[in-house]
Amino acid sequence: MQKPSNAPGTRDFGPAVMRKRDFILTTITRIYKKFGFESLETPALENLDTLEGKYGEEGSKLLYKIRSNSPISAEITDDQAAKLNGIIPGKWIAGTSKLGLRYDLTVPFARFVVQHRNDLTFPFRRYQVQNVWRADRPAKGRFREFTQCDADCIGSTSLLHEADLIQIYNEVFVSLGLSKAVLKVNHRKFLEALVDELQLNFPVAKFTSTLDKLDKIGEEGVMKELVGYGIDEEKCHQLFAIIGNSELTKENLLQFAKAFNNNPIAQKAIEDLSEILAYIEDCNLTIKVELDLSLARGLDYYTGCIFEALIPDSGMGSVSGGGRYDDLTGVFGLKDVSGVGISFGIDRLYEIMEGQQKWPDNLQVNDSVLICHFDKATQLYGVKLASKLRTENIKTIVFPDDKRINKQFDFANKIGVRFAIVIGESEMNTDSVTIKNLQAGEQVTLSFDEAINYLRN
Amino acid sequence: MQKPSNAPGTRDFGPAVMRKRDFILTTITRIYKKFGFESLETPALENLDTLEGKYGEEGSKLLYKIRSNSPISAEITDDQAAKLNGIIPGKWIAGTSKLGLRYDLTVPFARFVVQHRNDLTFPFRRYQVQNVWRADRPAKGRFREFTQCDADCIGSTSLLHEADLIQIYNEVFVSLGLSKAVLKVNHRKFLEALVDELQLNFPVAKFTSTLDKLDKIGEEGVMKELVGYGIDEEKCHQLFAIIGNSELTKENLLQFAKAFNNNPIAQKAIEDLSEILAYIEDCNLTIKVELDLSLARGLDYYTGCIFEALIPDSGMGSVSGGGRYDDLTGVFGLKDVSGVGISFGIDRLYEIMEGQQKWPDNLQVNDSVLICHFDKATQLYGVKLASKLRTENIKTIVFPDDKRINKQFDFANKIGVRFAIVIGESEMNTDSVTIKNLQAGEQVTLSFDEAINYLRN
Repeated sequence: MQKPSNAPGTRDFGPAVMRKRDFILTTITRIYKKFGFESLETPALENLDTLEGKYGEEGSKLLYKIRSNSPISAEITDDQAAKLNGIIPGKWIAGTSKLGLRYDLTVPFARFVVQHRNDLTFPFRRYQVQNVWRADRPAKGRFREFTQCDADCIGSTSLLHEADLIQIYNEVFVSLGLSKAVLKVNHRKFLEALVDELQLNFPVAKFTSTLDKLDKIGEEGVMKELVGYGIDEEKCHQLFAIIGNSELTKENLLQFAKAFNNNPIAQKAIEDLSEILAYIEDCNLTIKVELDLSLARGLDYYTGCIFEALIPDSGMGSVSGGGRYDDLTGVFGLKDVSGVGISFGIDRLYEIMEGQQKWPDNLQVNDSVLICHFDKATQLYGVKLASKLRTENIKTIVFPDDKRINKQFDFANKIGVRFAIVIGESEMNTDSVTIKNLQAGEQVTLSFDEAINYLRN
Repeated sequence: MQKPSNAPGTRDFGPAVMRKRDFILTTITRIYKKFGFESLETPALENLDTLEGKYGEEGSKLLYKIRSNSPISAEITDDQAAKLNGIIPGKWIAGTSKLGLRYDLTVPFARFVVQHRNDLTFPFRRYQVQNVWRADRPAKGRFREFTQCDADCIGSTSLLHEADLIQIYNEVFVSLGLSKAVLKVNHRKFLEALVDELQLNFPVAKFTSTLDKLDKIGEEGVMKELVGYGIDEEKCHQLFAIIGNSELTKENLLQFAKAFNNNPIAQKAIEDLSEILAYIEDCNLTIKVELDLSLARGLDYYTGCIFEALIPDSGMGSVSGGGRYDDLTGVFGLKDVSGVGISFGIDRLYEIMEGQQKWPDNLQVNDSVLICHFDKATQLYGVKLASKLRTENIKTIVFPDDKRINKQFDFANKIGVRFAIVIGESEMNTDSVTIKNLQAGEQVTLSFDEAINYLRN
């Protein structure tokens, strides 16, 4: 007999977890929609061509490939077969790989935009909530199948989009009860300017990927790596003097301009961020928005503003990231289309909220009402009552089996229902309803209309 | 340059389609929830063991398998290599299959129930809306990736669940505007009784699968097939005399009992259906519920009531099916757990509603408001206004770029927005809002509070 189990790195989400995950996802998508983003879904299966070569060497290893089968010649000798590492002649073996599983939502989005470019109106803003798959080694917090939740606006260089995304960050975190969240902002031009101003004579991408490790290996580690690449220590000290972080304000931007000696590349970053600040000035943001010049973001397609959000003291890394890219669609043949987007990590948000127990009360319980009864006649009466309650949008279960009332209450408690309605002969005869509050242990007998109101509040 | 395309048999769903698909899915899940069903999600990736041998010979061919890679020996000669059908020695080739893609929602549900049986409270009712994958030959209306939308209740033999599911059918079709829907009901015991009463001396499963073709090949075709199996024509005529269909009522059930000569196997079906009728008697069903003794449903795990729903004159087959099963979890080691469930085919419902244009009006338009402006100052004012509108839950986009007002209206029309707000200097100075109804071509100037009300209605 098979002992059933999940495939490694994958999970089932039962009702109690789904209520909470749904709360996170509907909160985020509700806010995306308020900013005019509309839903897009792309298939999990993509032509392998679409995915290959898009995620670097590391990503290429983690891509799930699906192969179409073909028969292997049966004429091979045993000796030859031995060299085939266990493949048995005459059996079907995997042929060429043709399909791959979605690895992120960005590449399929780029494919969609190029493929449908004649039908889309630009700027095009979409959100997308779908699973992605990575053949990674499973570990605590690292899964092979997980959910991404992206929003992008493509086809416009307007910095209003960056301002929209910052407002979205604010509203999402406030709505999730995570108002201590910090949004870190940086601009790729600042990173270029560091290389330029300090005359590092060093590829920006390599510099960025080293700087990206600051969280993990600290200033000392980054310095050691840079010195190893031939950058002198003095310049590293200059670097760290510049890349401190501070609140994103006009005044602090001017400070940075000075620190950069008004370097013209840095100036572009300062202009962009000033314009974004003007857009969000009157929007009453409550989360902390920080300018962090050490923020690098590994992905090399970012070209402008970059974002990273985290919840301090949560013991977790970033819960969201994003930025502006100038050429996401070039690889599919559509050049020079600028866009900007962000992505939330649902699993980390879930873990943080679970750790802090920040969930709204109503997610902790099953919000159905259970109708309990004593015999067939009262059950039938209960079915009629249930039909009426559902018309009033009250979720209702009639206890299905013929069991003692205490067993029915046990069931109610186990599935986490707050209210049980008890139908006895007297309730049937007087057209009334007895409602038992299972948490408080109290009960009241009400008319049908009163019961509706009681259950609604 | 790659010309991007979808993998064969897969589809992108852009915003206009997603609005409609979401309408169908949220309608169905809202109703599932009203009947106390809670959400479950299982991973797309399952251990191949879990899936293999569960879907018959046909299903086994259509299962997507994902293989883990292993290197092939580089020592093979060119001659040997030629026999390997193009596999190049020294390269990585597919090793053993370990994973498969979800083929339906039923087997993963059974796996979940067995795996978590000690944490679940029975009867356990769950709904599940997820994609499934089948390596079928793509054709019109046949996809390799599509969405299923299931509800099951497991761990109870109570026929109240059948009654709940019939009510769900009614409410779903009424809510979708498909109140002409017909729900066909049958009972597997009737099919057994036919074999028994007519002394067909024939395996029930084989009889059922022949009868299942009635829609496709007609009475004549079924008769030909049965005669081919050695059943005499006279018995076939008796069969067709019995298996007519009629409304599911107490009176008609008695008629059937007579036609079956009160056969004891048929009697069990009649008792079950009578009990279900008693449950739904006062529930004011408006769709047609038909007892159709020719309804067979191919899947051989059904043991009791079976359901199939269709929309007459839609040119489509069934849009939903389901039934009771007595041993879904046995294969995973949990015997004798009875359950009952249904599944809606979202693609067919979509096609039917698209054909009949049965969509609610608000799905035909983009319900965001677009704020248009004349220069940077009016745009900045627009951003402030947008922030206020969003606080009032009005979806709002500020036109991001610096373009002429007519281009902005063009954009509004193209993305299907109904209302544009125009901010000029006079609006800024008088704290007012000009709203242009793009469909009617009219415009009004209102105060902010008036505008909120106007946009809400």
